[in-house]
Amino acid sequence: MYMLGSMTINSRGHLAIGEQDLVELAEKYGTPLYVYDESLIRERCRAYREALNQHYPQGEILFAGKAFLTLGMGRLLLQEGLGLDVVSAGELYIAAQAGFPMERVCFHGNNKSPAELKMALDLGVGRIAVDSLMELDRLEEKASRRRKIVPLLLRVRPGISADTHRYIQTGQEDSKFGLGISDGQVFAAVKKVLKSPYLELLGLHCHIGSQILDSQPFQLAAEIMMDLREEIRLKTGTLLPELNLGGGLGIRYIAGDRPVGISDLVMLLAETLKKKAREHNSTLPRLLLEPGRSIVGEAGITLYTVGTIKDVPGVRRYVSVDGGMSDNLRSALYGARYRALLANRPQEPAEETVTVAGKACESGDILIYDLRLPSPRPGDILAVLSTGAYHFSMFSHYNRHLRPAVVFINGGLTELVVKRETLEDLIRPELIPPHLEKEPDFKTVGELGGSA
Amino acid sequence: MYMLGSMTINSRGHLAIGEQDLVELAEKYGTPLYVYDESLIRERCRAYREALNQHYPQGEILFAGKAFLTLGMGRLLLQEGLGLDVVSAGELYIAAQAGFPMERVCFHGNNKSPAELKMALDLGVGRIAVDSLMELDRLEEKASRRRKIVPLLLRVRPGISADTHRYIQTGQEDSKFGLGISDGQVFAAVKKVLKSPYLELLGLHCHIGSQILDSQPFQLAAEIMMDLREEIRLKTGTLLPELNLGGGLGIRYIAGDRPVGISDLVMLLAETLKKKAREHNSTLPRLLLEPGRSIVGEAGITLYTVGTIKDVPGVRRYVSVDGGMSDNLRSALYGARYRALLANRPQEPAEETVTVAGKACESGDILIYDLRLPSPRPGDILAVLSTGAYHFSMFSHYNRHLRPAVVFINGGLTELVVKRETLEDLIRPELIPPHLEKEPDFKTVGELGGSA
Repeated sequence: MYMLGSMTINSRGHLAIGEQDLVELAEKYGTPLYVYDESLIRERCRAYREALNQHYPQGEILFAGKAFLTLGMGRLLLQEGLGLDVVSAGELYIAAQAGFPMERVCFHGNNKSPAELKMALDLGVGRIAVDSLMELDRLEEKASRRRKIVPLLLRVRPGISADTHRYIQTGQEDSKFGLGISDGQVFAAVKKVLKSPYLELLGLHCHIGSQILDSQPFQLAAEIMMDLREEIRLKTGTLLPELNLGGGLGIRYIAGDRPVGISDLVMLLAETLKKKAREHNSTLPRLLLEPGRSIVGEAGITLYTVGTIKDVPGVRRYVSVDGGMSDNLRSALYGARYRALLANRPQEPAEETVTVAGKACESGDILIYDLRLPSPRPGDILAVLSTGAYHFSMFSHYNRHLRPAVVFINGGLTELVVKRETLEDLIRPELIPPHLEKEPDFKTVGELGGSA
Repeated sequence: MYMLGSMTINSRGHLAIGEQDLVELAEKYGTPLYVYDESLIRERCRAYREALNQHYPQGEILFAGKAFLTLGMGRLLLQEGLGLDVVSAGELYIAAQAGFPMERVCFHGNNKSPAELKMALDLGVGRIAVDSLMELDRLEEKASRRRKIVPLLLRVRPGISADTHRYIQTGQEDSKFGLGISDGQVFAAVKKVLKSPYLELLGLHCHIGSQILDSQPFQLAAEIMMDLREEIRLKTGTLLPELNLGGGLGIRYIAGDRPVGISDLVMLLAETLKKKAREHNSTLPRLLLEPGRSIVGEAGITLYTVGTIKDVPGVRRYVSVDGGMSDNLRSALYGARYRALLANRPQEPAEETVTVAGKACESGDILIYDLRLPSPRPGDILAVLSTGAYHFSMFSHYNRHLRPAVVFINGGLTELVVKRETLEDLIRPELIPPHLEKEPDFKTVGELGGSA
């Protein structure tokens, strides 16, 4: 069996993380439950930082908050010496509330609102990744009104579209993000920034995709961006001090996923930057990387209780759990695949092929097709692996399901970081206006039989 | 221009619902904003009830709460004399809190939890739509322990799979929902229920799909279900008093959508049931219908503010708004299409073709491709139409976006029914455990340059 992080089988024969029995955890906090192996998150943070220390000390890791961000996660990142990539007022607020140092925050997004830009400037975030010429003008105006210098990066479309371990290179990507190279937008932006006394151009940023398993597209992006940096130097005389290559490194969802290792990827990027700097006879840029999934993805497990089991003879056996597309949108949205096992009987032979269905009233709410499991029984605790990224963060109340609790486990320590939602919470923001308080004024409809 | 419900252009040349200027509304409540034309919701409720009165008085309309359910909506349904179809403890709780009469509630779902079944029995819901043999056993056990008779329907897979205006008829559907006919599950369930002194079999239920525009699949389902009812009578001597044909009627999202009218559909179903009852020489069943989308879908409008506009030369113009896949998941999840117009300039000629992008940090967050609009400017208020069903109910906090407010408009009345979420709300359920409160204990990382 394939174990991740501090996952083990304990003396009761149950799946455990560190010293925490996951069956007991499900009993204590209820299911569905988002469980994080905190020590694995820390291990991955350190793997990135150590790889930089070894291969490219002039670097910084900014965690991509959109993968998973809570106050507790913000504190953990702070403790591990990482920076943070945020994409909204909400994420920025959480960072601030967690006491995260704002100079280590980079603010992204294709449509930052005026209120968000104001908030970012008020808080003094370390970098704003400017996504468009229009945003650049807005930022210049705000900065000059404040007479305050704003440090920024320019987001570039490098013309690479990477998907898992394939990529395509195109002259012009069709994306809502970034400034084009071939259409002159990057150079127009660079000139604007260099002319402004209130904008400080730290460097360029790109992001080529998600769940990329191979190193090649990253290498290609690094080369393109270094060449662009050199072209900017030749055209403007300015050598940009930073290069932010974004995130996108994939993780193991299913057995066949073989992502390049963190250390190998960082080493390759370091070599690429050094080679290009030599070629251009220029200095090395500071390197920023923005991993999200590869830090938290494999550290997350979702626990469910098996409920109804149903056979569609000759077709499949549906095993329904007490969560679904509300807590795991990736299955329905991306057709994502997962491994899972029974936390209460992880070592029994997987003799059956079942389909794990969610409980949402929607045919498409299927979590895993054709999963091999020991014959499931109601009450079994199903542990779906690698659910740490884009699960909690994409939670929806569809079908008015309640948001699960989030628990961090670190060795002997088990701590609640997000409380389970209650029925009372659901209606807290709701109002009944006076005209809807009125009882129906017609002699109503009998018990059943709709006549007014 | 195509106007829905009480939508008009007011004297200022702005889009309005009833007497409410939507541009003023956006200013007052902020954007994104979910706006409902309450009078149109009521009109649709009445259209269903009047069609029943005219063609099939022994009928009842249960609104499908999963499309859109709040306390206020529950009150409205109560005032309009509709029943309610719920699918979770959350929806059941909202119904109860809204003072909804429980005998008019039907509880659905492929995996009702033990706690949900208990809640339904405690509240005395009018019908439980039993989805599997396993659930039937559970319900029987609970009912007999309480010595209380539980009224129920059996959910059936009728072997029709309807998608928009096409359908396929198969002997055995592959669905997580319901009991099969050909595999004998329905008959096994019927026998079980008839034997139990604590279970009352009111009838059968089926649901054939969503956003169905044509009447044919509904007619076919009605025929199959009436034949099944007759077969059950022949086999068991019991004539089931009810037939619940579910929901699924589509609405107009884009110009080409031409759903069958509510009255026409009800008339056709009435004729089909009458024809079949004559054919079987039996009595008519009470008819239950569960529309959701066709009641609230066209009554909802989402208002956005236009932010960044960006050209990808030779490809497309991206117009970004201040919402996206968090408030409208249907675009990304189903590839759904929408009509939209500028609420502040609805009458200007639509001279440009643009792509409306959401603000989520995700390439797939595109709301509308190739929309014809007057040349958009930042600050314009974009009104996306037909967003009343499965938008608020599928809201996610992805990117930590805040849930928009919901406003009902009825003639001169404009009322807030759900308050906009605040940044403070976001972190209310979150905790920082003591070990994460600690400051980092290494001489930290310089301002930038990741060495421990």
